[in-house]
Amino acid sequence: MSGGGSSRSNLAALLRRAGAQIGLFSKPASSPQRSISSSPGPGSSNPAMEEGSKTLRSRLCIIGSGPAAHTAAIYAARAELKPVLFEGWMANDIAAGGQLTTTSEVENFPGFPEGIQGLDLTDRFRAQSARFGTQIFTETVTSVDLFSRPFKIVSDSTTVLSDAIIVATGAVARRLQFAGANEFWNKGISACAVCDGAAPIFRNRPIAVLGGGDSAMEEANFLTKYGSKVYIIHRRDAFRASKIMQARALGNPRIEVVWNSVVEEAFGSEKGLLGGLKLRNVVTGEKSELPVSGLFFAIGHEPATKFLDGQLELDSDGYVVTKPGTTKTSVQGVFAAGDVQDKKYRQAITAAGTGCMAALDAEHYLQEIGAQEDKTD
Amino acid sequence: MSGGGSSRSNLAALLRRAGAQIGLFSKPASSPQRSISSSPGPGSSNPAMEEGSKTLRSRLCIIGSGPAAHTAAIYAARAELKPVLFEGWMANDIAAGGQLTTTSEVENFPGFPEGIQGLDLTDRFRAQSARFGTQIFTETVTSVDLFSRPFKIVSDSTTVLSDAIIVATGAVARRLQFAGANEFWNKGISACAVCDGAAPIFRNRPIAVLGGGDSAMEEANFLTKYGSKVYIIHRRDAFRASKIMQARALGNPRIEVVWNSVVEEAFGSEKGLLGGLKLRNVVTGEKSELPVSGLFFAIGHEPATKFLDGQLELDSDGYVVTKPGTTKTSVQGVFAAGDVQDKKYRQAITAAGTGCMAALDAEHYLQEIGAQEDKTD
Repeated sequence: MSGGGSSRSNLAALLRRAGAQIGLFSKPASSPQRSISSSPGPGSSNPAMEEGSKTLRSRLCIIGSGPAAHTAAIYAARAELKPVLFEGWMANDIAAGGQLTTTSEVENFPGFPEGIQGLDLTDRFRAQSARFGTQIFTETVTSVDLFSRPFKIVSDSTTVLSDAIIVATGAVARRLQFAGANEFWNKGISACAVCDGAAPIFRNRPIAVLGGGDSAMEEANFLTKYGSKVYIIHRRDAFRASKIMQARALGNPRIEVVWNSVVEEAFGSEKGLLGGLKLRNVVTGEKSELPVSGLFFAIGHEPATKFLDGQLELDSDGYVVTKPGTTKTSVQGVFAAGDVQDKKYRQAITAAGTGCMAALDAEHYLQEIGAQEDKTD
Repeated sequence: MSGGGSSRSNLAALLRRAGAQIGLFSKPASSPQRSISSSPGPGSSNPAMEEGSKTLRSRLCIIGSGPAAHTAAIYAARAELKPVLFEGWMANDIAAGGQLTTTSEVENFPGFPEGIQGLDLTDRFRAQSARFGTQIFTETVTSVDLFSRPFKIVSDSTTVLSDAIIVATGAVARRLQFAGANEFWNKGISACAVCDGAAPIFRNRPIAVLGGGDSAMEEANFLTKYGSKVYIIHRRDAFRASKIMQARALGNPRIEVVWNSVVEEAFGSEKGLLGGLKLRNVVTGEKSELPVSGLFFAIGHEPATKFLDGQLELDSDGYVVTKPGTTKTSVQGVFAAGDVQDKKYRQAITAAGTGCMAALDAEHYLQEIGAQEDKTD
C-alpha cells in the first residue's frame, strides 16, 4: 500500500464480484454453474459437467481465489487436469482475490517494477488461470467430505466429486474495530509491516504497533527501520511474547511501550491520512492522545479452515499442517497452499510459489493413483 | 516457450550484459565497483562502500540473478538491508537472469495472463530490485569464506564482507550436444516438460524424451497429455528409474521405448521447427530416423555450487541442503533459495517464493544477531 484507495478498491471488487453473482442468480435454470473462462484452451470443456446439473466430476478441485489458488490453477490447467476452482462469494468477508484485494499498491510482487494495484494483480491471476481453461465458480464452499473417494466438495449450488483437492483459502489478519479503524485502513492503518512498512507515509514518523506476542515484537523492531519512533500499545501490563523477543524490543531505544492501553479512536491528519490515536488506560481510565502516522495490527491471523470441519490435521492456531517442503496434508490427495498453511512468511509471492508446488504435487499424485484423463472422464 | 526466439534472446542478453561489462572495464580506476541502480531509493548508497575501494561491507550479500535472487533483493532492499547482489558474468555459461533467459515465452508466471518473454521478465525482476536500492555487480563470485565472521564473498574485482548471505545461483538443465541441438533449442527441443509441454507445437504430435531416470519416466507420462505418442530414447538396455516409475511408463500404451540408442542429429520441419531425430543403435550400429516435433532432455540438472568449495552441506547431487520449510543451510547466517536448493519443483515462481523466504529468514537472523543498521554502518 502507499496510502489511500482501499475502500474504493474494496468497493470496486465487491461490485464486480456482485455483478457476476447477480448474473448467476438471474438465470438459475439455464446456467446454474456459471463458469468464467475468458479464453478456454483446447479441451477446456469438462465432459463430466452437464448443463443444468448440480454435480460435476473433476480430477482436481481448487478452493480459494488468491495467488496460491490461481497459480495452482494455471499449472494444473496447463497440465490438462481441467481444474474446477471455487473462488467463493465474500468468503471470510473478503472479495474473491483474497487479502490482496484489501490493499492498494503492491510493490513487492516480482515482475512489477513500478508496482501494481492489489486488485489489478488478482484480476491478472484470475484471467491467466481462466485462459488455460480453469472452471471458476463464484460460490463459497460450505463443506467437504474427505473420507469418501472421490472427495466431495459442496457449495450452495454445486457439488464437485474430485480425485484431488488443493485447499488455498488463505487467512485473514485480525483487525480491531474502533472509530476510524476502517476510515484510515490503508491510509496509515495496516496489518503487515513487511508489506507496508516501507511506504513513504511512515518515513521518520512515529508509528504504533498493536499486540503483545512475538510478531508484535518483531514487527516493532522491523518498523524502527522506517519510523522515527515505534510505540507498542498493549492492553495488559505484560507481553505474552517469548523472553528473547521481549528483550530485543524492550532493549531497542526507538521502541516505547504503552502498557494497559486500548485504542478508542483513530483520527486524521490534515492530508486525510492517519494522524493519531485516542487511547484509554484500562487500569486508571485515563485518556490520552498519541500522534502517529501508522498503526500496525499484530494480533494474529485467522486461517479459513472452518469448512474443513476437522477432517484435515490443523495446528493449534487452526492452520492446515503440511509436510515441510511439500504441500501434502494429513489426507492423501489433499494439498494445501498459501496462507492457510503458512503463518510465517504469508506473502503473495510465497503463496504463489506454494500454489505451483501444490499443482505439481497433485499432478504427481494423480499419476500415482492412475486418475489420469482416461480414468475419470 | 512457444517456438523460436531463443538464439536471438540469448544474443540480446549477451550483448546487453557485455555492454555493461565493457563499461566496467573501460574505467577500472574510477569505478571498479560498477553498481547498477536505476532509481536508488532513500538511503541506497552504502556508507561502507568507498569509491575506488575493492572491499565493501554489507549486511546481506545475494549471489545469483534469477527470480530467487531478485525477489530476495526486493524484500531485503525494502527492509533497508541495503543488499549487495552479484549477478555474475556469464556464470555457468548463462547470461545474468538465469535459466529464464534461455527460454522464449513464459506462460506460467502468475501475473502475466498474455505470457511474457523470459528475458523481459528477468529484466523486470532486475529493475525492481534496483529500484529499491540493491547494489548490483556484474561479476561472478569465485570463492567464499563461510568460516569467518563477517562472511567473505570474492569476485575478480570485489570483496564483500557480509553478515548474511543468500545463495541463489540456480541450476542448469543438462543438454546433450549433437548436430542441430542448438539450432532447434526452443523450436522443439526443451529441458522442461512442465514449462513447455503445453505449447501448441507439441499437440497431437510425436514427442521424444531423452533419459532413463525417474524424471524421464515422469516427464514421458506427463507428455502423453499433449503428444500423440511419446518415445523414451535411452542409450542402454535398462532404465535406472525406480521400478514403480518404470512400470508406470512401460504400462502407458502411448509410450514406446527406443533402447540402446543415441541421438546423432536433429533435423528440421518445413516450418523450421524440429522435424525429427537421426538415431544410432549403439549395439547394432544401425541408424534410423524418428520423426518427432519435440525432444525433451531429462538427464538431470547441474546446481551451481562449485564456488562454495564444500563449505555448505550439499546433497549427493550437489544441491544445497536447506531445512525443509525454511531457507536455512548448514551454516547459520547463510540461506539458499531457488533451484540451487530445489531439484523437485524448480519453477520460476517457486524460486521467487523461496527468494522472498530467504530475505525474511535473513532479516530475522540479522535481528537476532543484532547486526542491524547501527551495528555495521
